[in-house]
Amino acid sequence: MNGLVKDLTGLIGESKVLFQPEDLLAYANDATHYFRTQPPDAVVLPTSTEEISRVLSYAYEHYIPVTPRGAGSGLSGGATPVKGGIVVDTKRMNRIVEIDRANMTATVEGGVVLQNFHRAVEKMGLFYPPDPQSMSVCTMGANVATRAGGPRGVKYGTTGNYVTGLEVVLPDGSVIKTGGKFVKQSVGYDLTRLMTGSEGTLGIITKVHVRLLTLPPETRTMVVVCESLDQAAEIVSEIIARGAVPSMMEFMIKLAVTVMNTFVFPPLPTDGEAYLLMEIDGTAAQVEHDAETIKAICRDMKAREIREVEDERVARVYWKARSAMYPFIMTIFKRAITEDITVPRSRIPDLVRAIQEIAASVGIMIGLAGHAGDGNMHPTVLQSEINEEIAAKAKQAIDMLVRRGLELGGTISGEHGIGIHKQEYLDWELDQVQIDLMKRIKAAFDPRGIMNPGKIWVEGGQQ
Amino acid sequence: MNGLVKDLTGLIGESKVLFQPEDLLAYANDATHYFRTQPPDAVVLPTSTEEISRVLSYAYEHYIPVTPRGAGSGLSGGATPVKGGIVVDTKRMNRIVEIDRANMTATVEGGVVLQNFHRAVEKMGLFYPPDPQSMSVCTMGANVATRAGGPRGVKYGTTGNYVTGLEVVLPDGSVIKTGGKFVKQSVGYDLTRLMTGSEGTLGIITKVHVRLLTLPPETRTMVVVCESLDQAAEIVSEIIARGAVPSMMEFMIKLAVTVMNTFVFPPLPTDGEAYLLMEIDGTAAQVEHDAETIKAICRDMKAREIREVEDERVARVYWKARSAMYPFIMTIFKRAITEDITVPRSRIPDLVRAIQEIAASVGIMIGLAGHAGDGNMHPTVLQSEINEEIAAKAKQAIDMLVRRGLELGGTISGEHGIGIHKQEYLDWELDQVQIDLMKRIKAAFDPRGIMNPGKIWVEGGQQ
Repeated sequence: MNGLVKDLTGLIGESKVLFQPEDLLAYANDATHYFRTQPPDAVVLPTSTEEISRVLSYAYEHYIPVTPRGAGSGLSGGATPVKGGIVVDTKRMNRIVEIDRANMTATVEGGVVLQNFHRAVEKMGLFYPPDPQSMSVCTMGANVATRAGGPRGVKYGTTGNYVTGLEVVLPDGSVIKTGGKFVKQSVGYDLTRLMTGSEGTLGIITKVHVRLLTLPPETRTMVVVCESLDQAAEIVSEIIARGAVPSMMEFMIKLAVTVMNTFVFPPLPTDGEAYLLMEIDGTAAQVEHDAETIKAICRDMKAREIREVEDERVARVYWKARSAMYPFIMTIFKRAITEDITVPRSRIPDLVRAIQEIAASVGIMIGLAGHAGDGNMHPTVLQSEINEEIAAKAKQAIDMLVRRGLELGGTISGEHGIGIHKQEYLDWELDQVQIDLMKRIKAAFDPRGIMNPGKIWVEGGQQ
Repeated sequence: MNGLVKDLTGLIGESKVLFQPEDLLAYANDATHYFRTQPPDAVVLPTSTEEISRVLSYAYEHYIPVTPRGAGSGLSGGATPVKGGIVVDTKRMNRIVEIDRANMTATVEGGVVLQNFHRAVEKMGLFYPPDPQSMSVCTMGANVATRAGGPRGVKYGTTGNYVTGLEVVLPDGSVIKTGGKFVKQSVGYDLTRLMTGSEGTLGIITKVHVRLLTLPPETRTMVVVCESLDQAAEIVSEIIARGAVPSMMEFMIKLAVTVMNTFVFPPLPTDGEAYLLMEIDGTAAQVEHDAETIKAICRDMKAREIREVEDERVARVYWKARSAMYPFIMTIFKRAITEDITVPRSRIPDLVRAIQEIAASVGIMIGLAGHAGDGNMHPTVLQSEINEEIAAKAKQAIDMLVRRGLELGGTISGEHGIGIHKQEYLDWELDQVQIDLMKRIKAAFDPRGIMNPGKIWVEGGQQ
């Protein structure tokens, strides 16, 4: 037991500190294990804000890097402790503090698993829309830190649209409470929103206040088989412009549908160039109205086929198949890097064509799915072998994808964040004036640069 | 013509600089004229980002205070140039740059008047919900700077829920572009949201990207006469919990209804203790469904009367009467200070009772209306004469109101901001750690403290 571990044990107790090499190795990276790996010097599993405050105050005093971590399911390397030091695993902070039906709000600790929270509010007829694919493991504090999205973003927005307040432990161990249970506040700078998406570089989120909606009583799933990419994009735009916004609206290419057909029956025709998998929700009357609107649009625009799935159990198979795509792909390929480019919705066809051209010119397979309604696409670079040549091709393809997304008026990250994975592209999107401003904001929170160093920008946390 | 005016004229041309005493006096305060007044040394009316950049870069070099201004309709004193210097009036930056139907987004210059924008998008069947009462004059850049709300907040959220990107001139004259036309982005700190509600202390907003919705085809207005405050609050909570969220849901007391009865026919009964004025919107089927739900709730809870107004022209009279309340009051009283306390929705009855007790104990009249759905209440302290004794009573009443709002789990400002009017209360809500952090963020943007100094916190912009 070295000095650091001894000190941490003294601060929060032995049962909350991990230091065996095999434990440390488990915290050496997150879901982006293919990028970089660095075991921390110690891992702490605090159970209260007070304990996190004690750990940060100690780390601050001794200039020790701290990497906050939820489930480690992030896809940008945000929870990888690139400079060693202490990993703060928040998963034991898992209390749902309050669900307040009269005010339609809830308060949770940062380590609450999203799906557990979904279940708890849904039991009361309430609804918390954010739904990243990792929801069975990811934690709500980390959802805020990464501004997590998900398919429902098209109708309901992302995590940032629901957070109304936070409790945050700042790098020096002091604790602030931002916002609250109210949905409106205009009191100084919006630190709640500044923390949202800050990727653990400004502090550790220990409590989250969110607003809730009413659980929509009905849902219906539809699949539209489209002639062409352009047709799919036009149908998406028209559906949204006509106000029949689906709760989910996923874009798929033929390859994805072929995979999906191993799950659904009868299989979908595979002669379309693009597919839309949609869920609509609301009251029975609203669902009926939206479904009729969508069908009329698809007929007018001569979509190849429209399948309506009214039975909820059958519908669930389609969505399960959609979620199972990534694990399924991983049974075939050795490595899959999921990209996260977002373009204005109308540019999706251009982006899809660019992806196909890039795949062909570089000579690597690129799978594709994405959230059609908000232009957030997830091309997945697939590697059949792990070797330097293929890794170099993957890198080349990603560079080209990111560049093309920007040329189409898009952004380098829609919902996964920058972390370490995207940091080399940051100055492709933002100019130096803005990056320098962000670094000064970082310094305002963390003058010693201990919080999640080595993330977002290449040079580390300090100016 | 003094040196400052000569320099400004050289930078942007004579026609864009005001310096006559009578002009300067017109810029000495905003709608909170009763609080403080200080004429600036010069006013500029730039027509481009480039000109604003030139002015700021000059002011920064010479340590000259700069106060940005939209229409000057703010209710917190945010546009009052308390330290003199230059007022930057943005109203000539009034171009609607783009309305993009396919992507449901728009881009406007900061000086576009909100109502003009409403009309432009509504002509295309699109919808931009934020609706502060000042919408016929207020400008969209200033809406962002103050995080403007309005009655539609209950269903649609406030300005911050629609802004997807900004162009901002920083205090030193450099220009940054944050976000963009896409609705999802996770690239570094959310400077778009940090600027939102920053009250002109971090930079000048020259361009705003917003997302748009589809214009709801139908609306219906309803008035519910409630037996008691508690009954009104319970009805509000139940309506929202059942998912029939109205697009507007205003709370009124008997006094307000008496005023309203000078406009509407047949007059509303004045025997209720509390009133709810609601608008529901959506497709015809949805409006019908929501209206039925609301009526059933009101019947179950034994509301005294439910009036449904299906004719849109008649409905407009009710809402006009609601908007006319303030001008009407000003024909009777010499001064009216509108407060902006927000509490969790379920605490509205407690707040209303507290307001009545405070009015009685201090001996001053307090009018009351507010946005019931989101707990944002606007008690209005009414002064029949302007003299020191009544001003002292008003101050005492406001102190008590603010204190009570906080005790009820609320916030000192829901949508008007802090400006100068609320700055003495800032540390009632936020502790010193958070205020100091905000000051460090301010310094990260504006190390020389030239942007809208003397706002938000009492000591001015620098630490």
